[in-house]
Amino acid sequence: MNRSPILLVHGGAWDIPADLLEAHEQGVFDALQEGWRLLERGASAVDAVEAAVTAMENDPAFDAGRGSFLTRDGRVQLDALIMDGAAMRAGGVACVERIRNPIQAARLVLDKSHHVYFVGPGAEAFAESHGMTLIDNSELVLDRERERLAEAQKRERAGVPDVTFSGSPSQESHDTVGAVALDSDGHLAAATSTGGTLNKAPGRVGDSSLIGCGCYADNSSAAVSLTGWGEPIMKLVLGKWATDRVLSGGSPEQVAPDAITYLHRRLGGHGGIILLAPDGRYGLAHNTPRMAWGVHTAEGPRVGTILRDDAPQP
Amino acid sequence: MNRSPILLVHGGAWDIPADLLEAHEQGVFDALQEGWRLLERGASAVDAVEAAVTAMENDPAFDAGRGSFLTRDGRVQLDALIMDGAAMRAGGVACVERIRNPIQAARLVLDKSHHVYFVGPGAEAFAESHGMTLIDNSELVLDRERERLAEAQKRERAGVPDVTFSGSPSQESHDTVGAVALDSDGHLAAATSTGGTLNKAPGRVGDSSLIGCGCYADNSSAAVSLTGWGEPIMKLVLGKWATDRVLSGGSPEQVAPDAITYLHRRLGGHGGIILLAPDGRYGLAHNTPRMAWGVHTAEGPRVGTILRDDAPQP
Repeated sequence: MNRSPILLVHGGAWDIPADLLEAHEQGVFDALQEGWRLLERGASAVDAVEAAVTAMENDPAFDAGRGSFLTRDGRVQLDALIMDGAAMRAGGVACVERIRNPIQAARLVLDKSHHVYFVGPGAEAFAESHGMTLIDNSELVLDRERERLAEAQKRERAGVPDVTFSGSPSQESHDTVGAVALDSDGHLAAATSTGGTLNKAPGRVGDSSLIGCGCYADNSSAAVSLTGWGEPIMKLVLGKWATDRVLSGGSPEQVAPDAITYLHRRLGGHGGIILLAPDGRYGLAHNTPRMAWGVHTAEGPRVGTILRDDAPQP
Repeated sequence: MNRSPILLVHGGAWDIPADLLEAHEQGVFDALQEGWRLLERGASAVDAVEAAVTAMENDPAFDAGRGSFLTRDGRVQLDALIMDGAAMRAGGVACVERIRNPIQAARLVLDKSHHVYFVGPGAEAFAESHGMTLIDNSELVLDRERERLAEAQKRERAGVPDVTFSGSPSQESHDTVGAVALDSDGHLAAATSTGGTLNKAPGRVGDSSLIGCGCYADNSSAAVSLTGWGEPIMKLVLGKWATDRVLSGGSPEQVAPDAITYLHRRLGGHGGIILLAPDGRYGLAHNTPRMAWGVHTAEGPRVGTILRDDAPQP
């Protein structure tokens, strides 16, 4: 098979403030370039999603890699999952503190281990044993995030309700990044990476790195990456829900908004989704005010920070 | 609603040696008693599965809690998940080393946190902050397991292939425990707990504590607990696969063996499943030589260590 590749990325679904819109558009654009450069040369979908997510981890605009939200005790704890839908291989890491690019550690798990998922210091030791340099956690922490945490904790002490888990989209969370790709061999892959939520309890793991929740890929159904309020996405195993509906004949254009509607109707959740079928059809949706998104086909790249119901899908 | 409760448990699916059969039958029988005592008094399904799994964690016959398999470096690392299908609440912990009953820590997450999943030292700190006493890891380690690990590592050094992940059922893994229950209010719950695989790399987390993989419950579909070779179960998100098929009209009696057939056909996996629908129908299946199982209905308890294709479902 030699088909035209497709790459979709997201940079988180939330109420992105006006002064950050340009940085988010630029970030998803750059991620598209990194992934597309590989896809157009015939590289695999799994290489492309790793490259696109690495670019967003390295971009401090996003809540992934350096510049992520801080835990209650001021540290960065990162989660990531990558899945190769051709071979049904997957690799994930969670709650790692000393890895600059958790998606690359996840890729090492996919390639080098018969296990799928490693957490905490064991995940870091696995990555180091396969040649990855461990860094000090402080290298991932930005002053911007120290201030953001101090503000959140000040509000907490003052008794201002934390709306992160209230069901209403917050300006302070959900900046998870993700990518799905279809390569010229017709194979699918997906990747998701996150720093989690602001002021989170140490050790908390959300949907991003959980297989079938924030990330999933299977050539026989679809590839998906989600972002948003993690716990409802987990409880509905929403990634698998969406790919299963493509498998049973739903179009990704319709299944993507259906998944977000189901998330909200069933558990009051909010978030965003990118979904790609093996025949090249795709869908994007969010019920947050904004979601940074990008699509690259042979016709070129398109990016934005909002998808409107009354507009045609990109 | 006031209906007749049902409790199913499993104590792992593998090639249980003849000299351990009695201990396994006794263990699942005792777990049934603990859970049923609560259910017949009108307690919730989530209380019943927690009690049944606690009993098996405390029983050194099983690979859960004290007496679990050891990691490559000689420690016990435990994972557990519990889910309340009535309220769609869930709690899980993974890679905890200082908790005697991880299913009780998972229950604390379900009850006391808006998060769902905690891993590593953060999970232990969460449990401690809610009144749980942390123990030394050595309290979970049995001499039997030190010897078993030494034997495995001796074989490894001698170049004997490790069959744990070869696709053939091994005598050395998959002793995970689990329970599913339907209470007198018609609510479902599920719980799964494990010490993982013998000689595992530290930090490895399998299917047991991953929502939708080794454990899932939703009143609108079914409750499920799985055991077996974790990675294929994860890649297929097999718990959600099974409950979705009940939701779309499949009978648990048929979906349970279908799930195990799918596991083997698609990825060469082996394991076992217990599956319970909100109308009280249930199914059990395994493709390993044996699986410790137990069912308690108003008619009383039944236990065994094998289910045969040519025999009626229990």
